Amino acid sequence: MNPTKKLRAEAGKFRLKDHAGDDTLGINRAQAEKELPELLLRLNDLQERFYAEDRHALLIILQGMDAAGKDGIVKHVIGAVNPAGCSIKSFKAPSTKELEHDFLWRCHAEFPERGRLGIFNRSYYEEALIVRVHPEYLIRQKLPAKPKPPELWEQRLQDIRHFESYAVHNGVRIVKFYLNISKKEQASRLLTRIDDPVRNWKITESDLHERTYWKEYMKAYEAILNQTSTDQAPWFVIPADHKWFARYAVSRILVDVIEGIDPQYPVTVASQKRKLLKLRQALAIEAKS
Amino acid sequence: MNPTKKLRAEAGKFRLKDHAGDDTLGINRAQAEKELPELLLRLNDLQERFYAEDRHALLIILQGMDAAGKDGIVKHVIGAVNPAGCSIKSFKAPSTKELEHDFLWRCHAEFPERGRLGIFNRSYYEEALIVRVHPEYLIRQKLPAKPKPPELWEQRLQDIRHFESYAVHNGVRIVKFYLNISKKEQASRLLTRIDDPVRNWKITESDLHERTYWKEYMKAYEAILNQTSTDQAPWFVIPADHKWFARYAVSRILVDVIEGIDPQYPVTVASQKRKLLKLRQALAIEAKS
Repeated sequence: MNPTKKLRAEAGKFRLKDHAGDDTLGINRAQAEKELPELLLRLNDLQERFYAEDRHALLIILQGMDAAGKDGIVKHVIGAVNPAGCSIKSFKAPSTKELEHDFLWRCHAEFPERGRLGIFNRSYYEEALIVRVHPEYLIRQKLPAKPKPPELWEQRLQDIRHFESYAVHNGVRIVKFYLNISKKEQASRLLTRIDDPVRNWKITESDLHERTYWKEYMKAYEAILNQTSTDQAPWFVIPADHKWFARYAVSRILVDVIEGIDPQYPVTVASQKRKLLKLRQALAIEAKS
Repeated sequence: MNPTKKLRAEAGKFRLKDHAGDDTLGINRAQAEKELPELLLRLNDLQERFYAEDRHALLIILQGMDAAGKDGIVKHVIGAVNPAGCSIKSFKAPSTKELEHDFLWRCHAEFPERGRLGIFNRSYYEEALIVRVHPEYLIRQKLPAKPKPPELWEQRLQDIRHFESYAVHNGVRIVKFYLNISKKEQASRLLTRIDDPVRNWKITESDLHERTYWKEYMKAYEAILNQTSTDQAPWFVIPADHKWFARYAVSRILVDVIEGIDPQYPVTVASQKRKLLKLRQALAIEAKS
């Protein structure tokens, strides 16, 4: 079962309740762990070509509830490729300066350059997630008076769709992952953060408070998946209760996406090649001296 | 022989001709290649603590002639740590906008945040390297009329020393590597870039032209090493003709530097711990349900 086909969210028809966090598409753990190192080598090779070609950028968006495994994907999947070809940006609550701008502004400034993979750990989608669940945050955004929720969320998702479409027109490919963790598995992971002194710094009471809004977050994610999973910028819903499966599936999808772009090493034009060959002789003598 | 002690440049006494590109400090390749994975695991662990502590930043500067192996250090050494804790910035010729500012401006903007390693592949030191070798580039910088070279270079290195000292006062630790490749080894590596089609894109005629200024570059590096290797922001001169040695030595020095900082996981204060434990019970029930 190819995760790239199976896990893609189909806009308009997407219901989270049809997707379990502990699904593994019939793939067993031993098989996935055997394939992963090979997938990561392929990813590494593809990233080198992508960098050398210097024609597209690839924006990789990671979203998910606390403890869904976003940091783990960065460490274990993105960590396998050359760091010179990646930029990783983790978006927190916007600063006072950022709030003086439109909501896409700070994210646009962090878009990857051509030839690079840019990983957003959270993104502008938070503007239709945490802000939707806590609309009181809107006050700080000083928006023009209208529209009000719920029209505001429709408008925001439409604005995002348009912006992503513009980015694709200009060479930025986009792939988005929703790490779909169950509420039960989240409880278990948060417990570990309380019990393990080395992980204590990763948890605050507000993380525990936030999960009381689980239903509201699921509703907000469902709207996002239904309204912004496009051919140009698809969402993949990754069952994330098993870390091994999430890492395998994300790696597999990234390999498929970059293979689809099919990056090539640039070919030196003949006139340039002739010039280099002229200079070659002197170098060869020096290298042997 | 500890590379961290042996390879540190001592200001005022440094002569490049005493330092061979193919030195290996009596360490043999098999030994270094056996130790490297273990060093990189330690580096990985130290970086996690460094990130968790969130108290210092570490600026790692890589300098060296073309093909000295700067990109290889990024890929093979920095590539071993969690990319979420690193930022990598490769500085090219300054843009028109950057030239409207003082020469430290664009680099300061890319300084690593607390808890992060920031790697500069080339840096503000280019202002006392390529610009010193080609003083005609100064025209674009629109500096006030005085001072002129050679006082200008003294002033620049002093400004850099002061700036680095300021950064250290404010929690940014600095470690600088000069990858010391011989002219002969450079010839051999540039040859490979001409002969291997997959590496062709990495070479231009201007790279070959630049090496005709080798002596001038060595003079400029010698001034830098003599005038800016301080206790707070030391330079290490890494023999770089053997890639395996350069990677081993840089890894070893980075481990020693971060061990010197001795980062610790934050300890949760008792009142916060009590609050978390209160919330623990509800989580435990959910996790088991």
